[in-house]
Amino acid sequence: MVEKMKELVESWSFLDAAESNFRPLVVIELAKGTKEETIEWFTKRIVDKKANGGAQLLIKPLVTENGVENIYLVGASHLRLLLGAETVGLVKECSDNSMRTFTYSSRKTFKHFADDNHNFLTMAECQYIIKHELENLRAKNEKMIPGYPQAKLYPGKSIVRRLLTSGILVQIFPLHDREELKKLSHSWYGRVKVGYQPLDDIRCYFGETIALYFGFLEYFTFALIPMAVIGIPYYVFAWEDYDKYVMFATFNLLWSTVILEVWKRMCAILTYRWGTLLMKRQFEEPRPGFHGVLGINPVTGREEPVYSSIKRQLRIYLVSLPFVCLCLYFSLYVMMIYFDLEQWALDYDKENESVFSSLMLYVPSIIYAVVIEIMNRIYRYAAEFLTSWENHRLESSYQNHLILKVLVFNFLNCFASLFYIAFVLFDMKLLRQSLATLLITSQILNQFAESLLPYWLQKRYNRRMKKRMCSKKTDMDLSLAEQVNMEKEMGTYLGTFDDYLELFLQFGYVSLFSCVYPLAAVFAVLNNITEIYSDALKMCRVYKRPFAEPTASIGVWQLAFETMSVISVVTNCILIGMSPEVDALFPDSKMDLVLTVALVEHLLLAIKFIMAFVIPDKPRDIQMKLAKLEFESLEALKQQQMKLAAESLKE
Amino acid sequence: MVEKMKELVESWSFLDAAESNFRPLVVIELAKGTKEETIEWFTKRIVDKKANGGAQLLIKPLVTENGVENIYLVGASHLRLLLGAETVGLVKECSDNSMRTFTYSSRKTFKHFADDNHNFLTMAECQYIIKHELENLRAKNEKMIPGYPQAKLYPGKSIVRRLLTSGILVQIFPLHDREELKKLSHSWYGRVKVGYQPLDDIRCYFGETIALYFGFLEYFTFALIPMAVIGIPYYVFAWEDYDKYVMFATFNLLWSTVILEVWKRMCAILTYRWGTLLMKRQFEEPRPGFHGVLGINPVTGREEPVYSSIKRQLRIYLVSLPFVCLCLYFSLYVMMIYFDLEQWALDYDKENESVFSSLMLYVPSIIYAVVIEIMNRIYRYAAEFLTSWENHRLESSYQNHLILKVLVFNFLNCFASLFYIAFVLFDMKLLRQSLATLLITSQILNQFAESLLPYWLQKRYNRRMKKRMCSKKTDMDLSLAEQVNMEKEMGTYLGTFDDYLELFLQFGYVSLFSCVYPLAAVFAVLNNITEIYSDALKMCRVYKRPFAEPTASIGVWQLAFETMSVISVVTNCILIGMSPEVDALFPDSKMDLVLTVALVEHLLLAIKFIMAFVIPDKPRDIQMKLAKLEFESLEALKQQQMKLAAESLKE
Repeated sequence: MVEKMKELVESWSFLDAAESNFRPLVVIELAKGTKEETIEWFTKRIVDKKANGGAQLLIKPLVTENGVENIYLVGASHLRLLLGAETVGLVKECSDNSMRTFTYSSRKTFKHFADDNHNFLTMAECQYIIKHELENLRAKNEKMIPGYPQAKLYPGKSIVRRLLTSGILVQIFPLHDREELKKLSHSWYGRVKVGYQPLDDIRCYFGETIALYFGFLEYFTFALIPMAVIGIPYYVFAWEDYDKYVMFATFNLLWSTVILEVWKRMCAILTYRWGTLLMKRQFEEPRPGFHGVLGINPVTGREEPVYSSIKRQLRIYLVSLPFVCLCLYFSLYVMMIYFDLEQWALDYDKENESVFSSLMLYVPSIIYAVVIEIMNRIYRYAAEFLTSWENHRLESSYQNHLILKVLVFNFLNCFASLFYIAFVLFDMKLLRQSLATLLITSQILNQFAESLLPYWLQKRYNRRMKKRMCSKKTDMDLSLAEQVNMEKEMGTYLGTFDDYLELFLQFGYVSLFSCVYPLAAVFAVLNNITEIYSDALKMCRVYKRPFAEPTASIGVWQLAFETMSVISVVTNCILIGMSPEVDALFPDSKMDLVLTVALVEHLLLAIKFIMAFVIPDKPRDIQMKLAKLEFESLEALKQQQMKLAAESLKE
Repeated sequence: MVEKMKELVESWSFLDAAESNFRPLVVIELAKGTKEETIEWFTKRIVDKKANGGAQLLIKPLVTENGVENIYLVGASHLRLLLGAETVGLVKECSDNSMRTFTYSSRKTFKHFADDNHNFLTMAECQYIIKHELENLRAKNEKMIPGYPQAKLYPGKSIVRRLLTSGILVQIFPLHDREELKKLSHSWYGRVKVGYQPLDDIRCYFGETIALYFGFLEYFTFALIPMAVIGIPYYVFAWEDYDKYVMFATFNLLWSTVILEVWKRMCAILTYRWGTLLMKRQFEEPRPGFHGVLGINPVTGREEPVYSSIKRQLRIYLVSLPFVCLCLYFSLYVMMIYFDLEQWALDYDKENESVFSSLMLYVPSIIYAVVIEIMNRIYRYAAEFLTSWENHRLESSYQNHLILKVLVFNFLNCFASLFYIAFVLFDMKLLRQSLATLLITSQILNQFAESLLPYWLQKRYNRRMKKRMCSKKTDMDLSLAEQVNMEKEMGTYLGTFDDYLELFLQFGYVSLFSCVYPLAAVFAVLNNITEIYSDALKMCRVYKRPFAEPTASIGVWQLAFETMSVISVVTNCILIGMSPEVDALFPDSKMDLVLTVALVEHLLLAIKFIMAFVIPDKPRDIQMKLAKLEFESLEALKQQQMKLAAESLKE
């Protein structure tokens, strides 16, 4: 078996490491003062042939005016990238318009493939392949990283991950393609236009995860338009009739179910076209931060750190869960103090009626806003610390636990005061007012903090950099060095988490109290239109280019949005039940009112679940295409089995 | 491609059709007076080599004292069965205790495999393989069945299905194995014992679907024991305190969630051991009743009848759905008449107070019971007719639509009167009484109608048959003929639908009103214990042996039981809220009472959903084993790709 493997690997030797047309794709930055022997060993492993356990990539030090700066450019030959595409299991379109997993041997059947067409793989795909190959560069018999005895290695450990955790490797990031970026940003946000975003181009440049976020943002904005349109006359004509509110709320609740279900279908269409719907999940490696005693992984049979699942469960349920509950309680406590302060300020203003006292009216809100912001930050750090301490083996399970923790806390922080006003104080005027204030200020602050501020800082820095560089600029090679130096200082995009969170909270503002403040949808639509532009700006100009991540759906966020839409059924029913107009309909018996509201609520919930059940998650044509692929693979398997049976009988 | 296929198929010719040790496995009964040419053609196709498009099975006419009776016995050589096992994708245990898909070439690695061990495949598996091979016997260029010009064929049409729909083929059924059956029935219900059912033996004899039903029945019975135990003191001590009822109901609600979640895990353990959890779903053929214009199937590219999905949707939503709603309305209407009659009988009894009038008290219930039974029967036929008219392509989708229709109607018929008594009449005494009457009578009637009656009829018939035969009985061959003749007259087991339906309704009686009638669980447990015995008796003695059907779960029933447990949260909360004891707790305000009940209900529902989310559907060790298999197949794929890449570069 091992013999056979070796032979196979040997055949990769046709990949010649020294190639003339070197195209830099990924930048590796090592720490200043990294030992020579380490650099030599590392670069040798990267360049080394597959047969010798290397990555068989191309690497070149970046030469700037100050000499070599421990920055390296990584690339790969065209052939190497095609073989890598097969390893990561990329799915591409065939000449007959079907989507198939790319294999080198069947390369001729793919659309736009030609041996000299270097654009068959997008740059984002090439960079993803290189990242994958680098991360899968594994230790052979090294016990440690040469030059760093404290950085232990064991056979099969990912070298890059060990270098990252021991701080020798500062960062790895993909290079921007100035020309492509210019084209993309022009068609994306460069001109004022009515129309869809160039999602396919975004996907080609930034990968599926980010394209899917922008797709969702756009879809969500369009989906909110009907709500916004119906909401406007309520504001303009100051409609206060209960039946109109009931109609609006009912429409909203059913609509939000429909849009979430339809999104699943849209998402399937997009990811089918991009190939990620069909992409087989790769076997997930342990995340970089995962630690444990060296043991045998029961799944792979490889030596790697293992950590008892029971211990993790204990940490989750005995430490993290109580901590989160405590934080939630504390947050509620702070909120109660805020309401006391507010009451005190009101009383003070009534007594004194001075300019000072009327200014004092704003103090509690400001303090509360600041405190919430501080609490959010601290909690975020605590959540990250706890989730990392829970020691999840997989990045995906780490992410899910982190998202859950942060989501619950943010939900409470944003909506607890509104719930209190609505269901304890029963003050609809105040609710409407607070809702409007919260929604609008949070949107403005977010847009500012998220995009405009970093953009401005980045621009100032770039200008300074350019000034410094310009004087000595001579040829194209320096331009590359300049680009690398500029990009390595840019902020790192930390993933779509905060962007989705923002949308999630916005969805909460729109749907939870939709029958009290129909105008929320209007503000949400307006915000999202500018959000698309500012997020696009952020991606293209503010942050380092992120590595593309293939994904088939928006994952846990779908669940979060669906949960929010269930909660909003409950809140809206209660709000409508509490309105004086509905109250007046049941003059004799409050009981009948409450029972009617409860009945309607249960009916709406039942309709929601039935709708979610009846609407298929994938459009029919996608279902057919998937069935066709499955059928073909079953047929292929059958033939293969017949062949094997025949062979075994000939022996 | 076609050339290669042919060559492969040719290699199957080593299977010699004429073999000495013929073991009859499956019986084929053709209609009396079937034309000679048809029989000749059909048997030739069955015996013919794979290379010529035959099934390559063994077939022998059954000879009785009256000569040949158009009954044929089908068997297969050991080698043929092993190759068939590979075709259907059976999963068996390897020597290293892992479960793997059986392939002929890797046969040596499987546990208990030996070339002369004819028990490697169980008899049920052999019969399943033969059924699969027979159903996959497809027309080549025949335009019709020889001798029957009206029975059209087209290339690729399943011959057996066409023969069945045109009435030439009366039935196909697997033979019982008298000896095995005796052993099984002895260990199953032959002796009074405390302990589990021999589920693995049941699975070997009857297949996974039936074994899983008995597994679920047993599991469900055990799961009900805690409820029954807690329920007994309520009856014995006539506890009427509200807090005890609340405790009982709360326990019940959470318990029912837990047992349904744990069942998923149990089911995964069972089906992993049986190999069906890992079994790849075969590509489903159109069901026999499916009709349409001949066209190209977009998935397989084969010629077959196609039917527009839009037409089917229209039929479902414009005809079936309104019809079902109408039936539901009609059923409610009948119920209202029943309550009027009941009231009239009560009034009449009060006025007259004679023996006749007190007998008249029972008349409405009897009429209602009879009417409901008649309505159920008629509705069942209507539902079957409608679902067949909807023209579903797949058997599974036909089954799901039928189950849904029947389920909704039965639910209403069984529980509508109870709901009416509980939530309209507010009569808890009557509710308890009706519940007890309905539960106990339905259980007794079911057991009688389902098992004892057919058993008695069968026994009488057998005795008559034996008497007729005994006189002429001479050798062992007649004994087989006798067995076949006896079995072909036995009833056909129509699947687990009615058995599950019975359990589902029982679950409704136990959980929907558990806080009113805690004794229901006790009756359910008692019934289920006898149900196991009577169902076992039914399977072994009353019906023809059914074909084994591999399955990985109880399918749509899991969903049905979960829905029932959600509904029961709502009903129990309302019932508790209505009890006078709880009422007395809120003397001032009915509002507070209703709000508290609603709050508790929502909390319970939330806890239910969180529990269902948190409890993993598969136990950890099964998850690990599945992950290991997936990892291995990914690794194998990688190596295969490397091999192909290497080969393609050598060219």
